[in-house]
Amino acid sequence: MGEFELLQRIRQRLPQPDPRVRLDSGDDAAISAPGGATATSVDALIDGVHFRREWSSLPQTGAKALAVALSDLAAMGAETGEAYVVLGVPPDLDEEGCIELLDGMARMAAETGTTLAGGDVTRAPALTLAVTVVGHAESADDFVTRAGAQPGDVLAVTGELGGAAAGLLLLEGAGSSRSSFHPHSGRNDDRERLLIARQLEPRARLEAGRALAAGGATAMIDLSDGLGGDAGHLATASGVGLLIDAAALPIAAGVAEVAAAAGRDPIEPATSGGEDYELLAALPPELLAAATAALARQGEAGLTRIGEAIAGGGVEIRLPDGGLLEPRGFDQLG
Amino acid sequence: MGEFELLQRIRQRLPQPDPRVRLDSGDDAAISAPGGATATSVDALIDGVHFRREWSSLPQTGAKALAVALSDLAAMGAETGEAYVVLGVPPDLDEEGCIELLDGMARMAAETGTTLAGGDVTRAPALTLAVTVVGHAESADDFVTRAGAQPGDVLAVTGELGGAAAGLLLLEGAGSSRSSFHPHSGRNDDRERLLIARQLEPRARLEAGRALAAGGATAMIDLSDGLGGDAGHLATASGVGLLIDAAALPIAAGVAEVAAAAGRDPIEPATSGGEDYELLAALPPELLAAATAALARQGEAGLTRIGEAIAGGGVEIRLPDGGLLEPRGFDQLG
Repeated sequence: MGEFELLQRIRQRLPQPDPRVRLDSGDDAAISAPGGATATSVDALIDGVHFRREWSSLPQTGAKALAVALSDLAAMGAETGEAYVVLGVPPDLDEEGCIELLDGMARMAAETGTTLAGGDVTRAPALTLAVTVVGHAESADDFVTRAGAQPGDVLAVTGELGGAAAGLLLLEGAGSSRSSFHPHSGRNDDRERLLIARQLEPRARLEAGRALAAGGATAMIDLSDGLGGDAGHLATASGVGLLIDAAALPIAAGVAEVAAAAGRDPIEPATSGGEDYELLAALPPELLAAATAALARQGEAGLTRIGEAIAGGGVEIRLPDGGLLEPRGFDQLG
Repeated sequence: MGEFELLQRIRQRLPQPDPRVRLDSGDDAAISAPGGATATSVDALIDGVHFRREWSSLPQTGAKALAVALSDLAAMGAETGEAYVVLGVPPDLDEEGCIELLDGMARMAAETGTTLAGGDVTRAPALTLAVTVVGHAESADDFVTRAGAQPGDVLAVTGELGGAAAGLLLLEGAGSSRSSFHPHSGRNDDRERLLIARQLEPRARLEAGRALAAGGATAMIDLSDGLGGDAGHLATASGVGLLIDAAALPIAAGVAEVAAAAGRDPIEPATSGGEDYELLAALPPELLAAATAALARQGEAGLTRIGEAIAGGGVEIRLPDGGLLEPRGFDQLG
C-alpha cells in the first residue's frame, strides 16, 4: 500500500465538500472561506490508550475519533464545518482496514454535516487518529465558552450519565454476571448492549449545544473526562463555585448495577467516569424551561437540572445522605 | 505529571496570541475571526518513523514538527496564522521533556509569527506530534495551488536540494569517512554539520512562498517527499508535463560526496531524498527575473530555474549524459 494511492482512494470515497471549502484534500493545504468566526479543537485517539482494537470495530473507531473531536464544538454551540485527520497506520492494519475506518468516519461526517477536508497518512507503532475540527458562527460572541457562568445560574446536563464508563467496565469483563463480555456475541442483554454502545459509539450533542447557545447558556463544557473534573474546569474558568445534587443526576439505566457488580461505588461512573460526551451548561434560571423545551423538541436528549452556581469556587457533589463526594476527573496522563 | 497541570504550564509559557485569535488554549475550542480565506494543513511526526529521538534533541523535534507543517502553508503563499498540536507522550518522556519540546516549538512559532492556539496532550507508545496549521490570505484566489502550471511556464526551485537526505545518510553512519556520525561531538566538519542541520532543523520557506505567490507563480508545492515525486504531484494536478534538467539542480555542497561515500548515486539525495522543504514553483517565463530578484532581496534563499512545463504529462529528469532519471518520490507507507 502506498500513501498516495491510499489518499486517492480515500478522496474518491468522500462526498462533495461544503461550499465553504473551496479546495479539499489533495493539495498542500485545504482552502476555506470561513466568513464569520471559527472554533477549532483537536483530539487524539490512540490504540491502547483511548480504545482497544479488540473491542471496537474499525468503523466504530473512525466514527468515535470524529465524534469526540466534534463534542468540543458542541460545547461551543458551533455549526460544524471541516475536519482534518492524521491517520497513523500500524504494521498490522492493511489498506482495506484503513478504508473501513475512514468509511466509519465519513458516515459520522455525513451525519453531522462535517466536511473531511484534509489529512495525513503515516506509519505508526499503534493505530493513531488525531482529528482537528473547525466549527463556525457568525461572530465570536456567538460561541459559548467555559467562562461565563454567574452565581445564581442553574446547572443543567444533557442526556444521561455514566453509560460510557459502565460500558467500559463491561468490556473489561467486570460489572456483568458473566465472566467476561463478548462484544460480538448474542449473550449480552439489551441494557448492557446500550451501555457498551455509549462507550464505543458516542455522539456529539451538536444540536443540543446549538440550542443551549441560542437559549442563553452562559457557560458550557462537554463531559469527556467525567462530571467532577469537567465541572471543576467550568467553575475555575467562570470564577464561581458549583453545587451539584447527586440525587438529581440523570444516570443511565443499568449503570448502578454494573458499577456495584464491579465492586465500585454505584455513582462513580456518572461522576468520575467520563466519555459520555454530554454537555454541562450554566443558564440563568428563568431560561431553563425554554431550553428544556427546545431540547425536548429536538427529541435526542433531555435536559436535567443538577445544581447551581454560587459565589466562591470549587465543586461540591452532595450525596443523598448529606455527605460530600470528592469530585474527581479522569486524567489521560494520570 | 497530570495532563491539566502540563497544559497549564504550557499555556503560561506561550506568548500573547495574534489579535485574530480571540480565545486560545484552555477552553473546549480556540476562537478565531479569520477575516478572509484560510489554508489548513496537517502533518504528523512520529518517533521511529519520521525522526529518531537519539539523533534529534527535544527542542529540535518540536521545532521541526511545526516547520514541516508550516512548509505546506509556504507552498500556498499563505500568511502564517494558528497551530493546533497533538502531543503524544511516551512512558519515558517526563514533564520537563515535554516542556523542552514545546519550548522548541514555541521558538519556531515566534520566529514565523504563528500562534500556538490549542492542543491535546495524551499518552502514546512513541513520541507523536500532529500539527494542524492555519494560514491566511485576503481571498481564496490569493493562494497558489499545485494546479495552475501552464505549458511554457518555467520551473524554479528555492534554496538548495539534497542536504536533508545527505544529513540523514550521515546520521545513519553512512556517507562519512568516519565509521559513524556523532551528533554532539566536535569530530564532524562544518559541511557535514550543515547537512545534518538541514535534516534536523528544517525551515519553512514562508517568505519565499509569499514572494512567489505575489510574483505570479502559477503552481507551487513544497519538496517534502523528494523532487521526483513532488514534481509528479504538481504535473498531475496541473495537467502538464515537466522537464527537469539535472545539471541545473542547486545541489547543496557536500551532498554528492556524502552520497558517493554511502554507495549511492550522487544525484539521488537531490532528486529522491525529500525533507529539504524547498519550494518548487511554476512561473510564466517573463516573471522569473522579478521573482528571482525578490528572493534575493529577502536574502534567505536563492531561486534557480531547473526546467519547464510542457503539454502532456509526467516528469522527466534529464541527466547531463542525455539519459533520463526515473523520477521517484519518498512514500511514507512504502
